[in-house]
Amino acid sequence: MPYDLDAREDGFEERFRDFLNVRRDSGADVDGRVAEILKDVYHRGDSAVLEYTELLDRHRLTPKGMRVTGEELRGAVERCDPDTVAALQTARERIEAFHALQKPEDLDYRDAQGVRMGHRWTPIKAAGLYVPGGTAAYPSSVLMNAVPAKVAGVERVVMVVPAPDGKLNPLVLAAADVAGIDEVYRIGGAQAVGALAYGTETIAPVDKIVGPGNAYVASAKRQVFGTVGIDMIAGPSEVLVVADGRNDPAIIAADLLAQSEHDANAQAILITDDGDFAVAVQRAVDSHLQRLPRSEIAGRSWAQYGAVIRVASLDDAPALVDRVAPEHLELAVAEPDALMARISHAGAIFLGRTTPEVIGDYVGGPNHVLPTGRSARFSSGLSVLDFMKRSTFLDCPPEGLRAIGPAAVTLAEAEGLDAHALSVALRLSGGGGE
Amino acid sequence: MPYDLDAREDGFEERFRDFLNVRRDSGADVDGRVAEILKDVYHRGDSAVLEYTELLDRHRLTPKGMRVTGEELRGAVERCDPDTVAALQTARERIEAFHALQKPEDLDYRDAQGVRMGHRWTPIKAAGLYVPGGTAAYPSSVLMNAVPAKVAGVERVVMVVPAPDGKLNPLVLAAADVAGIDEVYRIGGAQAVGALAYGTETIAPVDKIVGPGNAYVASAKRQVFGTVGIDMIAGPSEVLVVADGRNDPAIIAADLLAQSEHDANAQAILITDDGDFAVAVQRAVDSHLQRLPRSEIAGRSWAQYGAVIRVASLDDAPALVDRVAPEHLELAVAEPDALMARISHAGAIFLGRTTPEVIGDYVGGPNHVLPTGRSARFSSGLSVLDFMKRSTFLDCPPEGLRAIGPAAVTLAEAEGLDAHALSVALRLSGGGGE
Repeated sequence: MPYDLDAREDGFEERFRDFLNVRRDSGADVDGRVAEILKDVYHRGDSAVLEYTELLDRHRLTPKGMRVTGEELRGAVERCDPDTVAALQTARERIEAFHALQKPEDLDYRDAQGVRMGHRWTPIKAAGLYVPGGTAAYPSSVLMNAVPAKVAGVERVVMVVPAPDGKLNPLVLAAADVAGIDEVYRIGGAQAVGALAYGTETIAPVDKIVGPGNAYVASAKRQVFGTVGIDMIAGPSEVLVVADGRNDPAIIAADLLAQSEHDANAQAILITDDGDFAVAVQRAVDSHLQRLPRSEIAGRSWAQYGAVIRVASLDDAPALVDRVAPEHLELAVAEPDALMARISHAGAIFLGRTTPEVIGDYVGGPNHVLPTGRSARFSSGLSVLDFMKRSTFLDCPPEGLRAIGPAAVTLAEAEGLDAHALSVALRLSGGGGE
Repeated sequence: MPYDLDAREDGFEERFRDFLNVRRDSGADVDGRVAEILKDVYHRGDSAVLEYTELLDRHRLTPKGMRVTGEELRGAVERCDPDTVAALQTARERIEAFHALQKPEDLDYRDAQGVRMGHRWTPIKAAGLYVPGGTAAYPSSVLMNAVPAKVAGVERVVMVVPAPDGKLNPLVLAAADVAGIDEVYRIGGAQAVGALAYGTETIAPVDKIVGPGNAYVASAKRQVFGTVGIDMIAGPSEVLVVADGRNDPAIIAADLLAQSEHDANAQAILITDDGDFAVAVQRAVDSHLQRLPRSEIAGRSWAQYGAVIRVASLDDAPALVDRVAPEHLELAVAEPDALMARISHAGAIFLGRTTPEVIGDYVGGPNHVLPTGRSARFSSGLSVLDFMKRSTFLDCPPEGLRAIGPAAVTLAEAEGLDAHALSVALRLSGGGGE
């Protein structure tokens, strides 16, 4: 049974807090094992990667064979249903159009003291994209991770995807082709993260690694952070649907299950001001579960982590939403903008009754790589900015240095940094070469 | 002796690569110890923080005594030299003015398919700022970390600073007052990071932790990442100065030592096309070192990690600069803009002969919290964006859903996610409540 909470009842605060604190990740401690694998890949390169691939993916490769060739990618496109490929292309175009508007602007100005300053944005040179194998191998995720990198101007986008027992999902390869990924390697796990971070004889290192993965991949990303950049550590997915009683319960139930079916650790939450509607949604969930192919996973997620929270009025929803800080937030109400204006923490927001979260998973335009597990409090979905970095610059002409240099000398002396003070003072006293 | 490299000589590439790979951090593995401390703070809150403070800072506190009061802050301002306080105020104003221009814009538009989308930026609610004690307790860093948070609109900026033997640097407290920090606690180390991340009876948790620290602090930040956001893991500081022979060697030598004096692990690098100038700078370094109070530290840093790299022409500098990806880059040449245009990777760039890096440490305006250890390849200096997060939104009116919904259904089915497909299909088939 999902959590059943009523904000109007005594003890709600405590029950809600307990609900927020439930850990949904596997909790497996794999850090030690991952540290060994990373060290091994660092020191032995290809050999280590190939050995772990044989051991863990049951798949023997040569160094050259790690690379998925351009012919294989194009072959995968040809083997896929043309409608699916067309849908991938639609998705790529829409994701590209939205992300193109995220490109940041440079800044360059001179202030009243005559000091010129600003910043310049430049793309990172090489990005690695981890794509999970198995059930979570989603072609849509390939697009969502690769397109922002391409829009940012990353020269070299490298994808790794494990091939358990040698098998790759042709749709994932087709998506790599549609996204214009530059290099694809059929390796996964911590060994693939290590190969991207440190480089091997065959795989040149990248500057940043993005993309979701299992506990090993998450631990590996965390451990190589610093050597390379990483995106967030993705946890199980979640949706919070705020819905009044004027929605079709079958539709809201489908929205909840669309989250639950990802993973038994996923979470779907409904907040509503209508008790009858809450009951109808629960009933529709049960009814859908009898027909859905992934009902076993979805049912476990719903029973374990699902929640229905009744509130006296939807005016009470924003405060609860901010405490959940959901990855996905649906506002299935007549005036969603007014509600959104009162909410701070959510990765992506879906407005109105005809905007299911699923549109955002595939073809909306905004990214579907979003902060999970309450991290929307402090982080954002993947964007073009994640594949760029900013250099600030400062240009003090002599008059500018005379205006602000003395304050720098004062502070340097106060901090006991005399070479700092000297560096400015020598220039103020008229040195400076030519 | 510093590294002495000549790009025109055979074997340069190998020597340069070795130089790049030198690790400058302490390498101390404190993860296990830090994990214990964090776990303890998580479970025992204040009591654990107070015990570790007594053990590590030799300083006994009560829960209430952890807080540095407003009176103490104002008292510190009164005890400091008024010129220093005025310089801190100048710095704050200039940092504020620059960072105000970093505030990002929201986006809200409707595309040709009738789909409305965009993003909204909102500040994080609470930020923690770690300020090191001891020699690295810099009031300028307090401003550089706190002002962007304040400009971003963070409601609660919380500073922790260790008080070894009970002693605090009055300048650091004065800077906290000038920066308008909301809460200050005299605690440090992994225990302070734990208190900020998990909260205790006395200290409410924050959403993100920024600021530099020793190996314990760095490890703690890495370990709490996910529970809260963190900024980069700061390593030892570095400067790369590109200078032609028309600079005053004494000035360039001071610039190099301004970096070296921070820390024996700091690094100062000169790239020049003039061999005589290189010799003159090295001689000026030696001469400065005879007079500077911190010459022991600066001398060790220069001897161990310093470098002079001669190139045939400054045209060869950009490629080397990008490989170093320095935290600070000085371009002490007549046409610095032309050189900057050819460089991608640097945290902050200082243009021309009268713009010492030190100006940027204090009063330039741009932030001095910058990516170290080659991480300018993939990350940026601290900014207002680090204290905000972006929620995307999507709003599909019925006609928009009809336009793009079918592609979403196709992709959901291809991925085997039937509840996803159902969520869209039910709406397309005319459901949707009212």
